[in-house]
Amino acid sequence: MPVKTVQVTEKILASNASVAEANRAMLDAAGVFAINLISSPGSGKTSLVEATVRALTPGFRIGMINGDTSPAALDAERGAKAGAAAVHVNTAGKCHLEANMIGLALDSLPLDGLDFLIVENVGNLVCPSHWALGTHATVLIASTPEGADKPFKYPASYRGVDALVLNKIDLLPYLDFDLNLFTRGVGELNPGVSTFPLSCRTGEGLDAWIEWIVAGIARGKDRK
Amino acid sequence: MPVKTVQVTEKILASNASVAEANRAMLDAAGVFAINLISSPGSGKTSLVEATVRALTPGFRIGMINGDTSPAALDAERGAKAGAAAVHVNTAGKCHLEANMIGLALDSLPLDGLDFLIVENVGNLVCPSHWALGTHATVLIASTPEGADKPFKYPASYRGVDALVLNKIDLLPYLDFDLNLFTRGVGELNPGVSTFPLSCRTGEGLDAWIEWIVAGIARGKDRK
Repeated sequence: MPVKTVQVTEKILASNASVAEANRAMLDAAGVFAINLISSPGSGKTSLVEATVRALTPGFRIGMINGDTSPAALDAERGAKAGAAAVHVNTAGKCHLEANMIGLALDSLPLDGLDFLIVENVGNLVCPSHWALGTHATVLIASTPEGADKPFKYPASYRGVDALVLNKIDLLPYLDFDLNLFTRGVGELNPGVSTFPLSCRTGEGLDAWIEWIVAGIARGKDRK
Repeated sequence: MPVKTVQVTEKILASNASVAEANRAMLDAAGVFAINLISSPGSGKTSLVEATVRALTPGFRIGMINGDTSPAALDAERGAKAGAAAVHVNTAGKCHLEANMIGLALDSLPLDGLDFLIVENVGNLVCPSHWALGTHATVLIASTPEGADKPFKYPASYRGVDALVLNKIDLLPYLDFDLNLFTRGVGELNPGVSTFPLSCRTGEGLDAWIEWIVAGIARGKDRK
């Protein structure tokens, strides 16, 4: 009898993909535009959530699903304080969110009352990029103090994303950040990706980002 | 017949631990002090390697094993340029180094000619902390732009480390970094851990770090 090989990783990812499709169907039925925010720890995911929620409310109603490796719901609390309906997912040490975690979190959100959902993934530039969640766009946040070489060192995360935020541009005068190197790296991996240099701290550059989100929300309504 | 449960994760970690022990025995036989550097992407692992190698050579002979998710050996090249015997480990997308990768890399290094080995792990604040490598100390690098809340959000990484470097203190005047919050978080998870606030860019605070390394090198010689 031939040896049977079980493709564990492929099967797990295929199962994840089908749950992600179900999540997408729920979001589309409710007319909600959803993004998956990925970045290194400390690049400013939660700061971008806060700035985005403040810019868009009360005109739009926003939900947040926040993934953290610990039981502390610090980031979800910041999102809620800014005005989002926020759910905290404790991954209990796991390094990324998976579609079934999003499915459970969606059950706790008033989807029909939302326009826009931000999923804030675990801070990790390696693992989250392998896992579809059912969102409509994946957004990578880079930050200037991380250095301009990151596209070359974490290509899988840069390759697949639909938009790129370069946060903390207010720190550029105090850093040796080589913008040409960064732009070249991004261009090689993901030519033409929508890119938003901004500072959540000063507000510089936020307008273009907010316009991009508002256009996504309009597409979400059309899908309903 | 009772159902048999295979504890896959436990077995993999146990197997990793035995390879780590073999690595440790090789290092001890050669009298080499070895550290495992972990941090988020862009916290300054390679900058700390460069500054440390420059401060310690030619008095000491230093090796570097650099883990990256991509085939680009940018960081190992920086270590080599600074004066280290450097080996690049391409994890092919894997989010952490494992003991067997270190074992293979040790075969490529002139161990008997070294005093000190720096293992630079994949930039990731979640996964590397689960994997023993056989090094004598694990050092976590935090950096001020990441924000002071990181101990609360990545407790597993802060809990187990033997030393903590707080890098990029030259940026403190331009950030809202709450040092009291950071210190409280570290103190709750890892009371009394040796902590080195420093700037690889300006050199401030490096002396105390170098003293700690030199003491470790002396202990390594005693083990031989």
